[in-house]
Amino acid sequence: MPYDNLLLATGASAIVPDLPGFDLPGVMPLKMLEHGRKIKHFIQNQNVKKTVIIGMGYIALEMCEALHSRNIAVEMIKPRPTFLPWMNEKLAAMVKKEVEAHGITLHLGREVKQIEKSKEGFRIICPDLELEAQMVLVAMGVTPNSQLAEEAGLELGPNKAIAVDRGLLTSGLDIYAAGDCADAFHVVTGQRTWIPLALRAGWAVADNVTGTKTTLEGVAGTAVFKVLGLEVSRTGLSMAEAEEHGFDPIEVMIESRTRAHRHPGSSTIGVQMVADRKSGRLIGAQMVGKEGAAHRINAGAVALSTEMTVETFSQMDLSYAPPFGPTWDPLLTAANQLSKAM
Amino acid sequence: MPYDNLLLATGASAIVPDLPGFDLPGVMPLKMLEHGRKIKHFIQNQNVKKTVIIGMGYIALEMCEALHSRNIAVEMIKPRPTFLPWMNEKLAAMVKKEVEAHGITLHLGREVKQIEKSKEGFRIICPDLELEAQMVLVAMGVTPNSQLAEEAGLELGPNKAIAVDRGLLTSGLDIYAAGDCADAFHVVTGQRTWIPLALRAGWAVADNVTGTKTTLEGVAGTAVFKVLGLEVSRTGLSMAEAEEHGFDPIEVMIESRTRAHRHPGSSTIGVQMVADRKSGRLIGAQMVGKEGAAHRINAGAVALSTEMTVETFSQMDLSYAPPFGPTWDPLLTAANQLSKAM
Repeated sequence: MPYDNLLLATGASAIVPDLPGFDLPGVMPLKMLEHGRKIKHFIQNQNVKKTVIIGMGYIALEMCEALHSRNIAVEMIKPRPTFLPWMNEKLAAMVKKEVEAHGITLHLGREVKQIEKSKEGFRIICPDLELEAQMVLVAMGVTPNSQLAEEAGLELGPNKAIAVDRGLLTSGLDIYAAGDCADAFHVVTGQRTWIPLALRAGWAVADNVTGTKTTLEGVAGTAVFKVLGLEVSRTGLSMAEAEEHGFDPIEVMIESRTRAHRHPGSSTIGVQMVADRKSGRLIGAQMVGKEGAAHRINAGAVALSTEMTVETFSQMDLSYAPPFGPTWDPLLTAANQLSKAM
Repeated sequence: MPYDNLLLATGASAIVPDLPGFDLPGVMPLKMLEHGRKIKHFIQNQNVKKTVIIGMGYIALEMCEALHSRNIAVEMIKPRPTFLPWMNEKLAAMVKKEVEAHGITLHLGREVKQIEKSKEGFRIICPDLELEAQMVLVAMGVTPNSQLAEEAGLELGPNKAIAVDRGLLTSGLDIYAAGDCADAFHVVTGQRTWIPLALRAGWAVADNVTGTKTTLEGVAGTAVFKVLGLEVSRTGLSMAEAEEHGFDPIEVMIESRTRAHRHPGSSTIGVQMVADRKSGRLIGAQMVGKEGAAHRINAGAVALSTEMTVETFSQMDLSYAPPFGPTWDPLLTAANQLSKAM
């Protein structure tokens, strides 16, 4: 089929390992709307009361909450030993505690080798552990659908996502790509990255394909999720990512309050902040709290997009009222502590 | 008393007009902790069931909520005809509707001339209206305590606040001022302004007085308050303020949702955004919603502090998850609409 401009919008696919039993009905990945429908029907038809989720990323944790709210028991399992490995250790411990407090069992450092049918439903088999469940969700992440692009000889970027420039153009003549199949530039590192949450690329590529030149500066890696009673958010780089990219990073983690002193309903909010010692720049932030973590992170996202220093950020005029925070916003307290530590 | 450095931290005082009856016990302003204690005791001792609040600013509205939550009837009255005159008309109407839906009567364009004792407690007298109440709160704003500074010959700024430079130094030798008595520079206009909410000046002036040079870039006019079921927030300039300061302003007001499509608990959030046509800069934003307005405004506050254009802001990587907003954050939707309108 001839074309003037070609757009690759092939998305990403759920990772499902090629191991015995992962193709059984009732062992289901999570990516498409159709997966959601299948899971819902399976729960109803089989009267599911006990599930195992393979994976502990934010999609896995959102499913954990969804199942828990339907009074379905959940166990979660993953091969790596660290819960939310990209997160500051103390913040990750706050999230882990919240999940476990709701009766969810977390099996870390356990690699599933096989799933087989059992009397109860399924047996999930690791070298030193066996779990039983009526349903198994496979939330092991996604991979970009870039096979067609690769076969066409287009350049690929991180995680084999289709490499595109800031105008969403691939290395091929008049061939564009956008969405979860394509990479993007990270506003902090300036390097290519693949973060399958890039929402703005659709509009920009539509402009470019139809003849209006538009460029995207990039992504900051901002993400947020809710798990049970907690909001969890991040933007920019973790300590490990900052080291990988040649920064000289330093972090602080502070605990503040979600509301003013003695305001009813006030609770703990944890804020981690990462700076680059060489430039003084704010390059990352993470937050965990019962409230106030989801939208607050955006102030950090804007700051790191402008290459703001931590010292400048500590002077930002952020909102204050007793129901919404202490007089010093938790982000400003973190910035002040980080400035001192540098 | 001799000094090396002198700090004026004289604060502000509640405005109480010099009219008959405003000095009666039970007619009370709102500024100091002591005022709060007096109000609380008066409510208990007199078993107050009906109050009038003079003023409709955010302190008045916060008191309205506090009294309403104690099942005390509230009427509010102010001389000017417009409710929240600094606010976009449609957003102000959302707030007004919320207040009135809770049974609070708003008397706009009514100037109180006199308060007298009555059988019920007090009679609040305007030319064409008389109200009865057991308690009257005077929330007519504050004025900086700059008399001492004025008598000492120091320069005064807007609203007769003590004029200070970015190091909090007044026009007098080794005399500093900070807090509600002093002015500040506005990060959008670069001009002096007096916004009695400046929280960071205390730290900066302490550094300077004790010998560590510190400067403050200024304030953005960020403010937030909660009234009954609504969060109300603003940062930067209103349309009228933008015109006063020589900008060529244009605004949009959009309605979006506080959560993703069909997510339980989703409700309307209104966002107003102001840009300067000449420079393309984002110069103001206002929000009203049941949730998501208080902290979301901070992303705008950071953006206007960096003189960001609306177009650049529309590319910011703001957080998304279904419980916290639609896929396009309401701020981004407003920025996109404003970009198109320019």
